[in-house]
Amino acid sequence: MTFLHGIAASNGIAIAKAYRLVEPDLSFEKKTIEEPTTEVERFRKALMQSNTELEGIRDRAKVDLGADKAAIFEAHLLVLNDPELTGPIEDKIKSENVNAEAALKETADMFVLMFEQMDNEYMRERAADIRDVTKRVLSHLLDVEIVNPSMIAEEVIIVAEDLTPSDTAGLNRQFVKGFTTNIGGRTSHSAIMARSLEIPAVVGTKTATEEIHNGDLVIVDGLKGEVHINPTPELVEQYRKISKEFEAQKAEWAKLVNEKTVSADGHHVELAANIGTPNDLKGVIANGGEAVGLYRTEFLYMGREQLPTEEEQFEAYKAVLEGMEGKPVVVRTLDIGGDKELPYLELPKEMNPFLGFRAIRLCLEEQGIFRTQLRALLRASIYGNLKIMFPMIATLDEFRDAKAILEEEKQKLLSEGQKVADKIELGIMVEIPSTAILADQFAKEVDFFSIGTNDLIQYTMAADRMNQRVSYLYQPYSPSILRLVKMVIDAAHAEGKWAGMCGEMAGDEIAIPVLLGLGLDEFSMSATSILKARSLIRKLNKADMEKLTQKVLNMQTTSQVIEAVKNATN
Amino acid sequence: MTFLHGIAASNGIAIAKAYRLVEPDLSFEKKTIEEPTTEVERFRKALMQSNTELEGIRDRAKVDLGADKAAIFEAHLLVLNDPELTGPIEDKIKSENVNAEAALKETADMFVLMFEQMDNEYMRERAADIRDVTKRVLSHLLDVEIVNPSMIAEEVIIVAEDLTPSDTAGLNRQFVKGFTTNIGGRTSHSAIMARSLEIPAVVGTKTATEEIHNGDLVIVDGLKGEVHINPTPELVEQYRKISKEFEAQKAEWAKLVNEKTVSADGHHVELAANIGTPNDLKGVIANGGEAVGLYRTEFLYMGREQLPTEEEQFEAYKAVLEGMEGKPVVVRTLDIGGDKELPYLELPKEMNPFLGFRAIRLCLEEQGIFRTQLRALLRASIYGNLKIMFPMIATLDEFRDAKAILEEEKQKLLSEGQKVADKIELGIMVEIPSTAILADQFAKEVDFFSIGTNDLIQYTMAADRMNQRVSYLYQPYSPSILRLVKMVIDAAHAEGKWAGMCGEMAGDEIAIPVLLGLGLDEFSMSATSILKARSLIRKLNKADMEKLTQKVLNMQTTSQVIEAVKNATN
Repeated sequence: MTFLHGIAASNGIAIAKAYRLVEPDLSFEKKTIEEPTTEVERFRKALMQSNTELEGIRDRAKVDLGADKAAIFEAHLLVLNDPELTGPIEDKIKSENVNAEAALKETADMFVLMFEQMDNEYMRERAADIRDVTKRVLSHLLDVEIVNPSMIAEEVIIVAEDLTPSDTAGLNRQFVKGFTTNIGGRTSHSAIMARSLEIPAVVGTKTATEEIHNGDLVIVDGLKGEVHINPTPELVEQYRKISKEFEAQKAEWAKLVNEKTVSADGHHVELAANIGTPNDLKGVIANGGEAVGLYRTEFLYMGREQLPTEEEQFEAYKAVLEGMEGKPVVVRTLDIGGDKELPYLELPKEMNPFLGFRAIRLCLEEQGIFRTQLRALLRASIYGNLKIMFPMIATLDEFRDAKAILEEEKQKLLSEGQKVADKIELGIMVEIPSTAILADQFAKEVDFFSIGTNDLIQYTMAADRMNQRVSYLYQPYSPSILRLVKMVIDAAHAEGKWAGMCGEMAGDEIAIPVLLGLGLDEFSMSATSILKARSLIRKLNKADMEKLTQKVLNMQTTSQVIEAVKNATN
Repeated sequence: MTFLHGIAASNGIAIAKAYRLVEPDLSFEKKTIEEPTTEVERFRKALMQSNTELEGIRDRAKVDLGADKAAIFEAHLLVLNDPELTGPIEDKIKSENVNAEAALKETADMFVLMFEQMDNEYMRERAADIRDVTKRVLSHLLDVEIVNPSMIAEEVIIVAEDLTPSDTAGLNRQFVKGFTTNIGGRTSHSAIMARSLEIPAVVGTKTATEEIHNGDLVIVDGLKGEVHINPTPELVEQYRKISKEFEAQKAEWAKLVNEKTVSADGHHVELAANIGTPNDLKGVIANGGEAVGLYRTEFLYMGREQLPTEEEQFEAYKAVLEGMEGKPVVVRTLDIGGDKELPYLELPKEMNPFLGFRAIRLCLEEQGIFRTQLRALLRASIYGNLKIMFPMIATLDEFRDAKAILEEEKQKLLSEGQKVADKIELGIMVEIPSTAILADQFAKEVDFFSIGTNDLIQYTMAADRMNQRVSYLYQPYSPSILRLVKMVIDAAHAEGKWAGMCGEMAGDEIAIPVLLGLGLDEFSMSATSILKARSLIRKLNKADMEKLTQKVLNMQTTSQVIEAVKNATN
């Protein structure tokens, strides 16, 4: 029985079998063999196993995904059974006395090279097919498994190096009970995804993929950030109890679902939810969200082959606005680039994508994309309480340019006879230090601020939040971060505007008391964090938190701040 | 005659022939040919040309670099004359009726693949030789030139996509009269290098390598940021005049070499120089530098195959301290990582190196490297006025850790009976927004600040300063940057400490009036900028600049600031 420590990324307990979502290790050594005929037999057996496997995948793909998606596996079967490929491999085993792995790989590589050199799209696709088939036959020769997550049909815990949005898109969510990954932190995609799916997750274990084998029984403790591999029956029992207690605690919080969020001394704040798709609204309502504080529109653009049309976007925005029944919905315009790529946009590779051409920077240049989104938003605006927010604003010039484009599209729509809401609040994400520092100037022109702490922290500390080696610098409670947050809130209030926060920090137990003390108006977080946050805020006294805040703003280090908050709230 | 516009990166005028430091374009199309025998002749001719060329290079390398470095060209000659390689190529031309380029490339690729697959260091080196020789023969077949910058023997202007430190290390500096590059800005390595070599440079022209051919006559106008290709004789004449006037202006400034830097109303500031090696001291003295404000110790670690020893470092630090004859020398400890790699350190590739594991982050982890440098510095401290500064400090914890290590090494040296200066000022670079925002807390513990604007600006604006697509956000005069600078200076003065600046901004004409108004104590810049800056400051009135500064701190955009400064100083 083994035990791993990681970062608790999504609450709850999951107990299930492990499913490794890992690139297989297909390395081998080239060897001289004694009996070529036995080796040819071994090669043929691997071919047959691959054939059976491919037929099964093809048949299931036909049913689940349709004939056109299954066609790729037909092509693989053709390659697998092509004597022009298999013949030379068997010849090589016999004439050179090499092992099947080497004969396969070297022969296939030559064909791949040949096909790739031809200036012909069809032949290059054949090269890709040969590469895939080679991988599959190799996996049988080496007896390692190739993963195919769309085929999962039992309850599992996914074990991976990391999970990208496209990985999770390929999963059959019904069967995924939990995640554990080697890398990532509370703000990585895998963590955000786990919270949005409401399944427990522990990320940043460093060695999960090394320690856990397919089929191991695994407990993911998303409360403490622990992973237990092949636990004793006693431990499983213990965890079933903890899981029950957690469910009971959740039931207790659930009673607050229709309550206002009011501090012990009567100060009201708004608890909103971050969402990615209209489907997430169920969770927002179920968890008593008072608003959508961040609608990440990127998901509309991902996992597809071209840009979404104005109509597709309009339907999605309308669905969210109607679903929220007049409650505020803050929509962030496209934040693509950086770590979020769109294959069909062909952005140039950048040396530092987090400091690169992304979000509003891209939208102001690729105005076609931006205008389509703005039109869809403007048309949807009459179905609810829409607020629009621009991401990655660094200068007032950028805000003015974006606002002018919005205004142009609005006038165009009106002149076309379309309806647009009279008043749409227009705000910005504050996630770049420059903007926080100049917040007093921005506040004269924007309707609201929403502080994006995930990025704000990484830029302010100059530390990539995805990079393990500098993760110790990702310090939400650093007095420097708190000072920037204060600048933004004070600037908003001085101009009679409101300030929210939609980064992970807004739902954090240590941060909430300080943010309340600083006067934050809106806290936007994973829907699953809302009830817990409401329960916490109802116990806090705002006047006390103001005093606490005065103190922590003049502290020197993060650890001092954490200690002071813990002392003040216990 | 063509004209390019770029960024003026280093002052002065250069007129010389172009030398393209560009990877040759060796692409070709595979073609069916009619007469294979003529094609074989063409191939043999290219082989002969390559042979003559390689012999020439080998002979010069023997003289210039020694027999061991010349051995690589011997190996290339062996490959070139190996019938086991050339035979199959000629066969292929004849049997497949393909052009020589295709026959050469495909045959060579097969050999390379074969040799690389062998698990044998020697054979892998042969693969690299075949690749190099193929490139050379291809270049003759295609009639394009392969560059070899160490062989330059006449006055040239280097034309390149960009120049890395290793590129410039390979140049024969005696003959390089100017640079022009496609990418980069005033803070790129090529720009800094050009200023340190005191040769004119225009960077960021976007298309220099496309527009300029080898041997074109080129004017590099490092004053205005223009490049003229094959200018008319009249324009050359005109530029010779401008060049003379610039020399006259420099002569005028040169009269200030022994003057103090005092504003018109009697306020004294210190003008210091940024240096990379002890060799740069000549320029510092010649330009009247009052101190070394930034000694970049990275160069000690670059262009070599292992870490520099304590002794090597000691000698370099001692040379600089003695060379400055008691004037202050601020040494920055190792700032490696990010865009500055050391091949022998094998740092992991990072997704965002500018936000990654570099400088003090690396030194606090790889303490062996750090301690060796600190020991060398401490031992050298008795030879002058040494101040030590840590780069990329983001938290007080990091500063305290680094200081504790320094203290340990000092005690060790003393207990070994070595001498160490009594008082060594210990400061930090302020180049991370967090540190500027918390400067009041840092000021209680450090002896001085030096603001590193190159990084501070890129983090504060979240814009990679090397990335052309977001270069519009690299705004030194943004009110947000000026506010951070003010925080740092005010914090230092409140604790009786001094604040300097060692980024490019310190030598900038628009920035200097504001920095004087903000009360900056020390301005550290390229040595070649010092006299011009002194001339400017002597004309300014500090009291007026204070008023100007009050105004610009409350402006909204960079363009407003620039206009206000221009109005106030004209």
